Amino acid sequence: MAGNSFGTAFRFTTWGESHGPSIGCVVDGVPPLIPLSEDDLQLWLDRRRPGQSRYTTQRQEPDQVKIVSGVFDGQTTGTPIGLIVENVDQRSKDYSEIADQYRPGHADFTYQAKYGIRDYRGGGRSSARETAMRVAAGGVARKMLRHVLGDAISIRGALVQMGPHRIERESWDWAETENNPFWCPDAKAAGDWAAYLDGIRKSGSSCGAVIEVVASGFPAGLGEPIYDKLDSDLARAMMSINAVKGVEIGAGFEAAALTGEENADEMRSAGNKVEFLSNKAGGILGGISTGQDIVVRFAVKPTSSILSPRRSVDRYNREIEVRTKGRHDPCVGIRAVPVGEAMMALVLADHVLRQRGLTGAL
Amino acid sequence: MAGNSFGTAFRFTTWGESHGPSIGCVVDGVPPLIPLSEDDLQLWLDRRRPGQSRYTTQRQEPDQVKIVSGVFDGQTTGTPIGLIVENVDQRSKDYSEIADQYRPGHADFTYQAKYGIRDYRGGGRSSARETAMRVAAGGVARKMLRHVLGDAISIRGALVQMGPHRIERESWDWAETENNPFWCPDAKAAGDWAAYLDGIRKSGSSCGAVIEVVASGFPAGLGEPIYDKLDSDLARAMMSINAVKGVEIGAGFEAAALTGEENADEMRSAGNKVEFLSNKAGGILGGISTGQDIVVRFAVKPTSSILSPRRSVDRYNREIEVRTKGRHDPCVGIRAVPVGEAMMALVLADHVLRQRGLTGAL
Amino acid sequence: MAGNSFGTAFRFTTWGESHGPSIGCVVDGVPPLIPLSEDDLQLWLDRRRPGQSRYTTQRQEPDQVKIVSGVFDGQTTGTPIGLIVENVDQRSKDYSEIADQYRPGHADFTYQAKYGIRDYRGGGRSSARETAMRVAAGGVARKMLRHVLGDAISIRGALVQMGPHRIERESWDWAETENNPFWCPDAKAAGDWAAYLDGIRKSGSSCGAVIEVVASGFPAGLGEPIYDKLDSDLARAMMSINAVKGVEIGAGFEAAALTGEENADEMRSAGNKVEFLSNKAGGILGGISTGQDIVVRFAVKPTSSILSPRRSVDRYNREIEVRTKGRHDPCVGIRAVPVGEAMMALVLADHVLRQRGLTGAL
Amino acid sequence: MAGNSFGTAFRFTTWGESHGPSIGCVVDGVPPLIPLSEDDLQLWLDRRRPGQSRYTTQRQEPDQVKIVSGVFDGQTTGTPIGLIVENVDQRSKDYSEIADQYRPGHADFTYQAKYGIRDYRGGGRSSARETAMRVAAGGVARKMLRHVLGDAISIRGALVQMGPHRIERESWDWAETENNPFWCPDAKAAGDWAAYLDGIRKSGSSCGAVIEVVASGFPAGLGEPIYDKLDSDLARAMMSINAVKGVEIGAGFEAAALTGEENADEMRSAGNKVEFLSNKAGGILGGISTGQDIVVRFAVKPTSSILSPRRSVDRYNREIEVRTKGRHDPCVGIRAVPVGEAMMALVLADHVLRQRGLTGAL
Repeated sequence: MAGNSFGTAFRFTTWGESHGPSIGCVVDGVPPLIPLSEDDLQLWLDRRRPGQSRYTTQRQEPDQVKIVSGVFDGQTTGTPIGLIVENVDQRSKDYSEIADQYRPGHADFTYQAKYGIRDYRGGGRSSARETAMRVAAGGVARKMLRHVLGDAISIRGALVQMGPHRIERESWDWAETENNPFWCPDAKAAGDWAAYLDGIRKSGSSCGAVIEVVASGFPAGLGEPIYDKLDSDLARAMMSINAVKGVEIGAGFEAAALTGEENADEMRSAGNKVEFLSNKAGGILGGISTGQDIVVRFAVKPTSSILSPRRSVDRYNREIEVRTKGRHDPCVGIRAVPVGEAMMALVLADHVLRQRGLTGAL
Repeated sequence: MAGNSFGTAFRFTTWGESHGPSIGCVVDGVPPLIPLSEDDLQLWLDRRRPGQSRYTTQRQEPDQVKIVSGVFDGQTTGTPIGLIVENVDQRSKDYSEIADQYRPGHADFTYQAKYGIRDYRGGGRSSARETAMRVAAGGVARKMLRHVLGDAISIRGALVQMGPHRIERESWDWAETENNPFWCPDAKAAGDWAAYLDGIRKSGSSCGAVIEVVASGFPAGLGEPIYDKLDSDLARAMMSINAVKGVEIGAGFEAAALTGEENADEMRSAGNKVEFLSNKAGGILGGISTGQDIVVRFAVKPTSSILSPRRSVDRYNREIEVRTKGRHDPCVGIRAVPVGEAMMALVLADHVLRQRGLTGAL
Repeated sequence: MAGNSFGTAFRFTTWGESHGPSIGCVVDGVPPLIPLSEDDLQLWLDRRRPGQSRYTTQRQEPDQVKIVSGVFDGQTTGTPIGLIVENVDQRSKDYSEIADQYRPGHADFTYQAKYGIRDYRGGGRSSARETAMRVAAGGVARKMLRHVLGDAISIRGALVQMGPHRIERESWDWAETENNPFWCPDAKAAGDWAAYLDGIRKSGSSCGAVIEVVASGFPAGLGEPIYDKLDSDLARAMMSINAVKGVEIGAGFEAAALTGEENADEMRSAGNKVEFLSNKAGGILGGISTGQDIVVRFAVKPTSSILSPRRSVDRYNREIEVRTKGRHDPCVGIRAVPVGEAMMALVLADHVLRQRGLTGAL
Repeated sequence: MAGNSFGTAFRFTTWGESHGPSIGCVVDGVPPLIPLSEDDLQLWLDRRRPGQSRYTTQRQEPDQVKIVSGVFDGQTTGTPIGLIVENVDQRSKDYSEIADQYRPGHADFTYQAKYGIRDYRGGGRSSARETAMRVAAGGVARKMLRHVLGDAISIRGALVQMGPHRIERESWDWAETENNPFWCPDAKAAGDWAAYLDGIRKSGSSCGAVIEVVASGFPAGLGEPIYDKLDSDLARAMMSINAVKGVEIGAGFEAAALTGEENADEMRSAGNKVEFLSNKAGGILGGISTGQDIVVRFAVKPTSSILSPRRSVDRYNREIEVRTKGRHDPCVGIRAVPVGEAMMALVLADHVLRQRGLTGAL
């Protein structure tokens, strides 16, 4: 009943804390005979790795992933894939100061309330460091999806809002996401954001963000109504990412303000296929994929670690002031982009296998 | 792997279609020795029942729930609780016209794509009729929660936006939700909405809505990180409700536009308890409840069944126009209020039992 | 966490007590487009039905199964299949005498210890009446298996030991199982058993039995190591049947007394297939089917309800004597045969779907 | 759907192959605040370790377990416990000879049939090496059980039959199991078995065994009817151990030959408790523990690796002879004793947590 696993058919379980010797995961349910190497996973981990620009935490983690089981002669065997990443830069600093403090916006208070104990070093299990394993598992999911569905599929993420600054849909260019440290699909906005985030960073403040993840090329028919709908599982997946406070599919919250006429995605015949004239539904109807782009957005709150002192209490219920020094992301939403992509891959991998099984060659 | 169950420790499984002889569910994991009668459940079903105002479908369903197992001498026995509701008003009309049509915004196309067959009568399994069983199961959940946590808890829902019309937080009065057919907590807004929705209804159009559900009096410590966080499970639960396109917790999407200073919920000591000075977090930090109000909002798209003709195709990929006659809700968001409340109760019941077990007297 | 469901991909959940208004189950995960009628299930229920010979309880239950969801126009739709059987002959006798008594060998004491309450009428939930729903669900499983694997498969059960009387392997004839009330594959033994069981019955005593179930025609490759091996799941399935105290696969306990040479099933090439020269393994190696007959045996203890007075206590811990009057099976093992067949079908259906998914047409 | 996890509330997932760099597991659901060190686990691993007498494989594995997460300041934190054991003595011999061969009695053929690929080095994933992680996880389970239920509980295993040689119940002495390399509770029999097994070993043959595991001091009320009965879960657990072909509870298969009178465990009042006068039931009625000793026996087939040549085929369906050289256990049943104990601990830990939850301090 403890919740460290995700997925039903393609199922992974993570372990590890921010300042333990290593973090890892087990990916179970991967079909046999899929080519898989550590490079296939490192590719994605490198996208999430901290310390790559001045806008993310300066913690230096090489995040080298090792495959310790489930692959033989370069191919998956159908047995569980063990993945391990060593923790390297867990500064041996003295954490005793914050051992008893509850930092506002962090999980310190709730972990203590729930468990009566917590590994306070770097946030312990509640640290976003755990998401490295999601990205690694997501790499396995991507490999499997391409193996089964072909190379035409893609899963891409972008930052579409930084703090209060939202980009316009018209100026969107996927290729731009690789050209700036924000995964921003709008070159002009990326420049503005750099200036904005420099200000935030220098003042020791932080800001939130909105991320959009789009999966293209997936077939109609994915999703298991009623309670494991594709959108339900995506909502659960994205909401499980650290600091996420909202998830929407397609038109999302804006759909509430539309009329039925405006919201209907009309259909036409296109050769022997169905063509939708719009995608307010975000590629999902009744919890099942339509074959259009699957579109998810999620909101990330501002990083809770800030320089300004905030009022709080400690575990002895004494009133204190908390001020976070040290290495932190001024906008954690940036590094949430590859994590959101990974969760999309993991949910889709799970639903493909729920329909197709593929646990063996039968 | 098919997805007709929800929950881990408090787990229910629903069955039934819109126009079958009956719908039902099995609720497994309910602790023994809890007083339970059909009246305890009917109370909540009556809130959701169609045909109670001119703003909901005129289908007349008494929705009388029967308990067929798991209760003995007025108390639960720890064995599975079977619940059944007969379908009464499944008009014996001829559905052959729409048998092959894909209605835009409905699940017709995706059910056909996924299963290669569908019960097209009234939407079959994809009909919101299924939510009656969620409300019934939610009644069991509420009863259990009060039994375990006491009578101080509450779970309440309200419509906070109808179409483009959003109410202001200042004018909010929970008591008002019982005084209008919209579960609107603002008497003035309720009047405006009535006029607005009459217009929508008469023109054969439809509109969306936003619902907020608040759980009060629940202890800190509920939720199972990392993948079964309380907010993850709430997101999944709400997104599984028919027509929902977005879910947010606390400040939700607005949190993205805040700074770390604005978003932090500061803490003070209040006697021997911790007091939070605000609730941007919506009562959840790190996936675990803080003891504050648990606040969830979700967006419902406009009803897809509208009188205006929409372009579509049929299952032979012939281009058609679809125009929905018959009994429908101009704003399905209204009847989603008791369903959202039920899902909140079901998620909380599950997490209470995940922590406490209670499958026996041990 | 309460345990009223079985299976992962082909999953059923039962509800109902011996003396409630009805019993039922939900079968989730059945692929769409499989022809299914009530007759397909009634066939198997009729084999298990009580009161068909003087050797089984005289309770008269027509056990008419109704399909209340998941089938449309004679075919499964991929949505959950609801099955209901009304309880008819729940004699309105006064059960107050045994309400507080713990019958030796029954679950009275343990249900009370676990739950602090129990429906004592006819054993409530612990009654073998629940197995009617396994047989019904097993009928769905059989139908699905034939649909997917073809008509060459078979699942057959036989009583191979009644009390101390075991039949010899040499005299085995499957066809004979239909010719006597014991499912005995040996006509001679069936005659001897009739005399033996008449004696048992008239003296108000009871006896145990051993049942063998054989599945033929199933492909190699079924089973999910390490913890969901085919034999693990069969062991769990058979042990879950009322009164079962032992399960073995192939040579079973006798394998312990063999040498490696004796126990090895040698292999030869037969055309383009592998042929095994013996089947000590019972068709399973490493938890995965070999393609040979899958052979399971299970031991059923003697019926606990007997006329001879037994010493016991009541729930107030007062010492009493218990003597069971009323309608009972002198050898419950007989009616366990169709139940064992059903569990074999259900386990195999689950493992076929675990490999193939088939939740949709994808 | 792949089966590398066991348990619901106390759930562990193993990974790793016989000749990979390491093997490991994740134990999820362990309550917080339980003292736990590597020594607590090493204790049990040392009992299972190979190479400790001439009767087990001479592979030398130190089997040093490392705890890599979930423990902080010597106590569990409620987060997943990662355990890793390095593989040291994976002889770098040339396995190419057997790469394509199917060894009779081994899982070679079925893994190839299922997955179309297999890690043939030392049996890969199908090797009993995986059971080291069960023993490690079992150590965590034992620690948790004592923490929750107190020190009066015990879980002990013994070899009660080696090849055809069975010990008598009268000569049983638990203390003796520590005095011989067979876990034999009968000093006299242990001597006889030594001579017998020396003969088996020298001739390159092998023999089977029967193991009994007894859990004492556990409360009445454990087990979740109908499908997660305590005996069902024990059957599944024991049958999942490599080479096991049969499982029985209490009187087991012998119960089939008893009358109802002989099989009934009568009850008497003993102070304010219930006392059973016998334990044919093996401590379980209706799938729920009675508070008596919980007694399970399981049969292990003879080691399939033998020196005598056996007929077989290779993966190209060519007929071959297979003769196993190298390091092997003449009676794998011996090393199955600590594994059976571990599985008993794991099943009981799971059922204790299913009833009590304990995922937090709530």
